Amino acid sequence: MQENMQEFITLAHHLADEAGVIIKQYYRQPFEVESKSDESPVTIADKTVEQRLRAIVEAKRQEDGIIGEEYGTKESKNQYTWVFDPIDGTKSFVVGRPTFGTLIALCENGVPILGIIDQPILGERWIGVKDMPTLFGAGAQARYAPVTSRPCSNLSSARLCSTSPHWIKDQWQALRDSSDFLIWGGDCYSYGLITLGGLDAVIETGLSTYDYIAMPPIINGAGGHMCDWNGKPLDINSDGMVLALGDIALKDQILDILK
Amino acid sequence: MQENMQEFITLAHHLADEAGVIIKQYYRQPFEVESKSDESPVTIADKTVEQRLRAIVEAKRQEDGIIGEEYGTKESKNQYTWVFDPIDGTKSFVVGRPTFGTLIALCENGVPILGIIDQPILGERWIGVKDMPTLFGAGAQARYAPVTSRPCSNLSSARLCSTSPHWIKDQWQALRDSSDFLIWGGDCYSYGLITLGGLDAVIETGLSTYDYIAMPPIINGAGGHMCDWNGKPLDINSDGMVLALGDIALKDQILDILK
Repeated sequence: MQENMQEFITLAHHLADEAGVIIKQYYRQPFEVESKSDESPVTIADKTVEQRLRAIVEAKRQEDGIIGEEYGTKESKNQYTWVFDPIDGTKSFVVGRPTFGTLIALCENGVPILGIIDQPILGERWIGVKDMPTLFGAGAQARYAPVTSRPCSNLSSARLCSTSPHWIKDQWQALRDSSDFLIWGGDCYSYGLITLGGLDAVIETGLSTYDYIAMPPIINGAGGHMCDWNGKPLDINSDGMVLALGDIALKDQILDILK
Repeated sequence: MQENMQEFITLAHHLADEAGVIIKQYYRQPFEVESKSDESPVTIADKTVEQRLRAIVEAKRQEDGIIGEEYGTKESKNQYTWVFDPIDGTKSFVVGRPTFGTLIALCENGVPILGIIDQPILGERWIGVKDMPTLFGAGAQARYAPVTSRPCSNLSSARLCSTSPHWIKDQWQALRDSSDFLIWGGDCYSYGLITLGGLDAVIETGLSTYDYIAMPPIINGAGGHMCDWNGKPLDINSDGMVLALGDIALKDQILDILK
């Protein structure tokens, strides 16, 4: 582990804790929903969380870059960039379904080396760090335990997930023909379920950096594999077409369909 | 309230409590998944819960009928029939997503007069009783509070939900054109979210009696409305094409699309 990694891990947990405190104040409370050009709902909670996370990083790590969903990019003056999605799964948040989450990533020269998925309502958190086993637990103070994805080498018995058929409309019928088990919805929580052996693959397209960049350390550290639809590793500049696998044996079978 | 309704309410809570105890033992544990002819996963938990619920009703209410997903129909010798879906949302249960639930309904002459949605992992329960306000709380001993759906008279601002596009494939593009907000997945939990003002409509087809019959007392008692795709009230013999609304003002707008 690189020498400053423990500092990064502590800071990342702190960021997730702070996000959760804010999010819980707004969950299932009446609030205004704005419309953005991409028509995703953006809540006050979303903006408040991102402001808070940016302020913390700017205070503690002045030279690090920041990329956030709401407030854009602050260029890095070193090799590190933090990436935040305050509320991944804003529709789920709006309707009151606790599968949304806060995504926190740290990239080194554009490559993710730390990722957190935090679901504050359920009190569940995943943290993945480059070259370390992925841990699953609750909050910063709780006990964390390593988790591993399940072996699944045959697509016909794989449990597949995608947030929405709008996103993979040309491929979903082919995927459905290949597997009996295709489930919709679930947001970032679905990636976490890969590391618990519940899901075998998450297939998404149209994602922004902040939607996927926390995931590779989490998926890889649980024994899985993550790549774009060309099979290449994900970095900060990937095109947002994403495949997360519990077992790399599924990679070519699924990529063949996605082509 | 009819004189034996308090007995029914107490029994229904007891059934939900018993189901939850069993389900929690199996949640996120390794288990075998069978394939049925309709390809939905059926778990040991599913069968164990239904056996337990049937045994309780058979011991306490010998003449009542029982309909369950796994073990078929016991004919009623009076006007009452209990209907159980031990785990609605078995795919969610299998992958570890806590939006599945146990559904318990009591019908009088085929018309639902009591319904429960219980989500044992989150500890959340909805109970609806004919002519009474729907209550939301946690378990049998917790405090329950009345809940109400939100006003929403315009389809373009409505938050819509369906479990899967496979089920409404001819209609989903039209629905999407009508509303900016269409979310997938969610199982029985989505009906509960109508009563909390999170969702405005759930649209489903291909349902069996045990999938929908607990819902009308819950939706109606929260100020909403429930019907089939012809606009008729649901009973034990409805065709499984279901519309649940937080605001009846959406009824004709959505039925026009579903026609």
